[in-house]
Amino acid sequence: MNTFGERLRLTTFGESHGKAMGGILDGMPSGVEIDMEGIQEMIDRRRTGVDPLTSQRRETDVPEILSGVSEDGFTLGTPIGFIFRNSDARSGDYSELADHFRPNHADYCYDLRYGRRDYRGGGRASARETVNWVMGGALAREWLALYDFDVEARLTAVGHVHYDEPFEFGENAEIGIAYNDDVEAAMRAEVERARSEGDSVGGRVSCVITGVPGGLGDPVFGKVQARLAQAMMSLNAVKGFEYGMGSRMAEARGSEVIDNFNEGFCPTPFSSNHAGGVLGGITTGMPIYFNLRFKPTPTIGRPVAMATEDGEIDIVQARGRHDPCVAMRAPVIVEALSWMVLGDLMLQQQLVIS
Amino acid sequence: MNTFGERLRLTTFGESHGKAMGGILDGMPSGVEIDMEGIQEMIDRRRTGVDPLTSQRRETDVPEILSGVSEDGFTLGTPIGFIFRNSDARSGDYSELADHFRPNHADYCYDLRYGRRDYRGGGRASARETVNWVMGGALAREWLALYDFDVEARLTAVGHVHYDEPFEFGENAEIGIAYNDDVEAAMRAEVERARSEGDSVGGRVSCVITGVPGGLGDPVFGKVQARLAQAMMSLNAVKGFEYGMGSRMAEARGSEVIDNFNEGFCPTPFSSNHAGGVLGGITTGMPIYFNLRFKPTPTIGRPVAMATEDGEIDIVQARGRHDPCVAMRAPVIVEALSWMVLGDLMLQQQLVIS
Amino acid sequence: MNTFGERLRLTTFGESHGKAMGGILDGMPSGVEIDMEGIQEMIDRRRTGVDPLTSQRRETDVPEILSGVSEDGFTLGTPIGFIFRNSDARSGDYSELADHFRPNHADYCYDLRYGRRDYRGGGRASARETVNWVMGGALAREWLALYDFDVEARLTAVGHVHYDEPFEFGENAEIGIAYNDDVEAAMRAEVERARSEGDSVGGRVSCVITGVPGGLGDPVFGKVQARLAQAMMSLNAVKGFEYGMGSRMAEARGSEVIDNFNEGFCPTPFSSNHAGGVLGGITTGMPIYFNLRFKPTPTIGRPVAMATEDGEIDIVQARGRHDPCVAMRAPVIVEALSWMVLGDLMLQQQLVIS
Amino acid sequence: MNTFGERLRLTTFGESHGKAMGGILDGMPSGVEIDMEGIQEMIDRRRTGVDPLTSQRRETDVPEILSGVSEDGFTLGTPIGFIFRNSDARSGDYSELADHFRPNHADYCYDLRYGRRDYRGGGRASARETVNWVMGGALAREWLALYDFDVEARLTAVGHVHYDEPFEFGENAEIGIAYNDDVEAAMRAEVERARSEGDSVGGRVSCVITGVPGGLGDPVFGKVQARLAQAMMSLNAVKGFEYGMGSRMAEARGSEVIDNFNEGFCPTPFSSNHAGGVLGGITTGMPIYFNLRFKPTPTIGRPVAMATEDGEIDIVQARGRHDPCVAMRAPVIVEALSWMVLGDLMLQQQLVIS
Repeated sequence: MNTFGERLRLTTFGESHGKAMGGILDGMPSGVEIDMEGIQEMIDRRRTGVDPLTSQRRETDVPEILSGVSEDGFTLGTPIGFIFRNSDARSGDYSELADHFRPNHADYCYDLRYGRRDYRGGGRASARETVNWVMGGALAREWLALYDFDVEARLTAVGHVHYDEPFEFGENAEIGIAYNDDVEAAMRAEVERARSEGDSVGGRVSCVITGVPGGLGDPVFGKVQARLAQAMMSLNAVKGFEYGMGSRMAEARGSEVIDNFNEGFCPTPFSSNHAGGVLGGITTGMPIYFNLRFKPTPTIGRPVAMATEDGEIDIVQARGRHDPCVAMRAPVIVEALSWMVLGDLMLQQQLVIS
Repeated sequence: MNTFGERLRLTTFGESHGKAMGGILDGMPSGVEIDMEGIQEMIDRRRTGVDPLTSQRRETDVPEILSGVSEDGFTLGTPIGFIFRNSDARSGDYSELADHFRPNHADYCYDLRYGRRDYRGGGRASARETVNWVMGGALAREWLALYDFDVEARLTAVGHVHYDEPFEFGENAEIGIAYNDDVEAAMRAEVERARSEGDSVGGRVSCVITGVPGGLGDPVFGKVQARLAQAMMSLNAVKGFEYGMGSRMAEARGSEVIDNFNEGFCPTPFSSNHAGGVLGGITTGMPIYFNLRFKPTPTIGRPVAMATEDGEIDIVQARGRHDPCVAMRAPVIVEALSWMVLGDLMLQQQLVIS
Repeated sequence: MNTFGERLRLTTFGESHGKAMGGILDGMPSGVEIDMEGIQEMIDRRRTGVDPLTSQRRETDVPEILSGVSEDGFTLGTPIGFIFRNSDARSGDYSELADHFRPNHADYCYDLRYGRRDYRGGGRASARETVNWVMGGALAREWLALYDFDVEARLTAVGHVHYDEPFEFGENAEIGIAYNDDVEAAMRAEVERARSEGDSVGGRVSCVITGVPGGLGDPVFGKVQARLAQAMMSLNAVKGFEYGMGSRMAEARGSEVIDNFNEGFCPTPFSSNHAGGVLGGITTGMPIYFNLRFKPTPTIGRPVAMATEDGEIDIVQARGRHDPCVAMRAPVIVEALSWMVLGDLMLQQQLVIS
Repeated sequence: MNTFGERLRLTTFGESHGKAMGGILDGMPSGVEIDMEGIQEMIDRRRTGVDPLTSQRRETDVPEILSGVSEDGFTLGTPIGFIFRNSDARSGDYSELADHFRPNHADYCYDLRYGRRDYRGGGRASARETVNWVMGGALAREWLALYDFDVEARLTAVGHVHYDEPFEFGENAEIGIAYNDDVEAAMRAEVERARSEGDSVGGRVSCVITGVPGGLGDPVFGKVQARLAQAMMSLNAVKGFEYGMGSRMAEARGSEVIDNFNEGFCPTPFSSNHAGGVLGGITTGMPIYFNLRFKPTPTIGRPVAMATEDGEIDIVQARGRHDPCVAMRAPVIVEALSWMVLGDLMLQQQLVIS
């Protein structure tokens, strides 16, 4: 299943070291002005080869839009096809993977399921796929930016270095993600330490969505939190999703986490936001916020025990270029997925006869 | 959206205090013998009114199957329609909700979305809906029990009382859920304490799925963990989902959490199971395990500030009968959702030409 | 697949001689007043046992709505569950079908596909299923009647007796279906003749949809004509679908069938309507009209050669009660399917940013 | 909606005079050897610019496959992305269409729906889109050719010149499509006559699918005939679909069109095939055959009355290059759609537990 969303639908293709990645975004409204610079800016944030702490594979990643946008830059309402040519794909780096499965990678499972796989760079299972998602999200953002939506995701933990409280609440339940130069530096240092030791390290990404009107979300099986969870758990290394007060809710008493209504629902419907902007699967009009936990990538700078198809174990040092902390590059992808979920929600507003 | 699943599809209906709950399970294989006792046993586990610590609404909940099963008890491959008549529905208990929204309930959001709602007992947003899910899962189990699948969910934390390690690993990465009489008693005491104080309390449910063959799951957007997360986040009070080593992965180094292959993939493919039975979105053949965090129900035995449609705030003591810890009754629902996800996965096996 | 529609979705269940037929209509707007008399009137038009020329099975067919409608009769926006209890189901009539396949019935194919079947009255393949469709269409009509839509279907041919031109065009491309007492009487006589000879006879049903706004329909694979064709070909005995000038278009020159624009698109966009109200898969704002061709039912009042599961041929006289001309009862079903297609189209209007 | 099929899903994009046409075929089995020559051969059959009687736009139409196929030419089970660059697109030919709607074209309706359109060559509504469909069908054929399926479509009528009986039946209900040099020549002459008179002409395409196993098709709303009808009615100029004896069934008696079982279901299940290979929506194991009626293209070589956006009428001679008989190039498209329907049916076989 290579389609995401119900009404705003992104269908994607591409193997990491194949000819191209690409996708089709179907369901966009017509008449949305597409600013290619804004789109490129999101794609560039995802790019490897820039920050010395991320994979040194240099991806140019300039999308070619093939349809769905008029010559003067407005969406036609027809499907938007796009491709990213794969370049700088050093397939030779992966020759040892032709007949070896790496532990904690998708190799073994793809072989179980498909009977064959493109082993180069992880093939279809590669995080390279997420360039398509960022494109989809960037296109959705062009539309949704016409409203007051905003989405922001940040890295808020690396290994044991973390913001104690990743979310900061202000008046009227305003919310932001924690930022502090010292913690940022400490997190980067933790990534550098893992890299220098030939290891990798996990992390946490926090995300806040603001400006969301109340009444979005389609119960029973289309709840906002279920859509977000499905989206975020599609990201390869994500091992956990929690929204609002999340896991801490499990230790709380009901009386501690009630969000009281503001009189007249002003200036915001509730005076606090333990709920995380969603009740009964429908948006409340308060900000949505959630945390993701990422595993450390299993590709590390040391030899590991790989298995052949016959189950023989060989100690192999994987070549290729990898990220010591995959969570570092994830925020823009989390934002892109959020934009796509928001677009889908907007297209599913309930028709009310009155 | 009231349909769950793609190939094994459960479509449901019902307001808590309407005439009936019910659903249609479409996609079941033909020829599955349906043991109504086994189904009733699952439904009974969900029932309120039995354990003194759960809601005292007495639900009889005997399903009436209307189609899809032959007179001698085998599935026909056609859709299975079923209903549960609603009884013991004291609508009068909810009269104050006709013109009040409860905080942290779906009332306000349903009104935003639909412009009207059945306020009695939460209407469509009620946890009563989950009786349909248990029916769907129980039917799926009848089929899947023909293989070696097993699904077990348990309550493993209430408030601050919890099993430190909810999962226990044995040899060959065997796995079970922690059980200890003292902790169980302490958890029940914690629920009783919340109830007696007119409060509610959150909790954690842990689940293990065993016997799963490798190769199930449909990347990129149909990953096993994404399906499970979507399913579980559809359960009203769930605030967080994590699988495998989950959140702890975010603090780990890659070298610490690698699962090494067993030689010859025997007796199990890996010698450990940090991954949680899924890699690249596809099952590895190792057990799948995950945790859910539940919020404390916002309905408590004390007056709370409710809002009228006009935004006036009134202090109201909700009547009706409720659970002090909604996580307590959740394990069978979590199992049911798991069975449905498994059924869907089984029907999506990849066709391999060789 | 027992679901029809994408956004207005009808999911159905039921075997002809099982406990009940039923369905779930999901996607209805909230706030639609439901007039049960209007619904019953549509259901009654479908009923057998009334006209002496249709099957003498007496179906009472009063729907029980179980959810989705408020006590004061307005849709809640939640799924509408409904059932029809099966009564007057003389299963004994079908005992010879337990081990025989009838020619030109679904028996043999259901056995091929499912390995088993409910042979009583055709089981899931029975036209009894269409009571669910009429219910779905009647509910959709309650909503769409708020606009200016109208749908009318009539029997316009029985065997060789037919209206030469089933559609009558007036000024401004107004359109109606032919009606003439003599032809009606001749068609009824033709049905009676077939019945008295222990035979059955085919027919044609014509349908006109008026009041449709322009701009509905979702190319490329969601064209209005493709949706209508899919809907209508789902009706058991339908062997052909044509819309607008239909088959006669194949013999025409382009210059003969051009529909010229009216100046200012007034009073209608086109001055003629060869196209049948759809261009490029999108409604033009002109009436939609189409013809269906029905086969004669293969159940006739004479012994026929049936096959056992082992392929032995036995001459058997089927009992049971059947229609000599299934097209006679079809118009209300055709209307119901049309209403559902219209509902779906209305929920898929393109979002245009300007 | 730009996706066709449920399990074998083709999602397409492209405006006639945009950068490229393209699509993603998702759901293909893994391990299918792809013979690019076989695919190109199908694409070439669709090509314009070859036969002097078809449009003189020269389409090179060599697909570039971007993913989903291994370097040694086997499907990976992952989505197959492909594009066709648009070349020889003389947009200048269409300048008069920038502010005119052509009668009986999609122009006016696209404007109603989307508020804007790519007017060049019909944009998204152009028959150029069908190059994507042929690619999808050609890929499906690579897989299905491993079984005994065969699909053949032919032009069997042009205007009033036609084969009286487009299908020829042999022993054991063998079936072929009529072929006769004289009729072929007469049909071509009819096209030439229309062209020389600056006109266009309608036609009929007949199609036979052989080698289909019994038991395919998914009632109630996934009947084989409903899928075929939906597919074929998606083709721009198709105005009618009939299968088996089709429209003639409407004039027949039941006793005349019964297909008797062969003893032991050998050599074929039935001794005749009025039904057209489908009963109850499920394949019988007999050949499937159907007819399509095509309208004459509204683009003719004479001035026609076009409308401006404001509803003013101008007499304009459309430039651009067009087919005098669009049915002529349709057979390969009809075959391609049939292959895709077959692929979808194959992936929906019922799971039977026994």
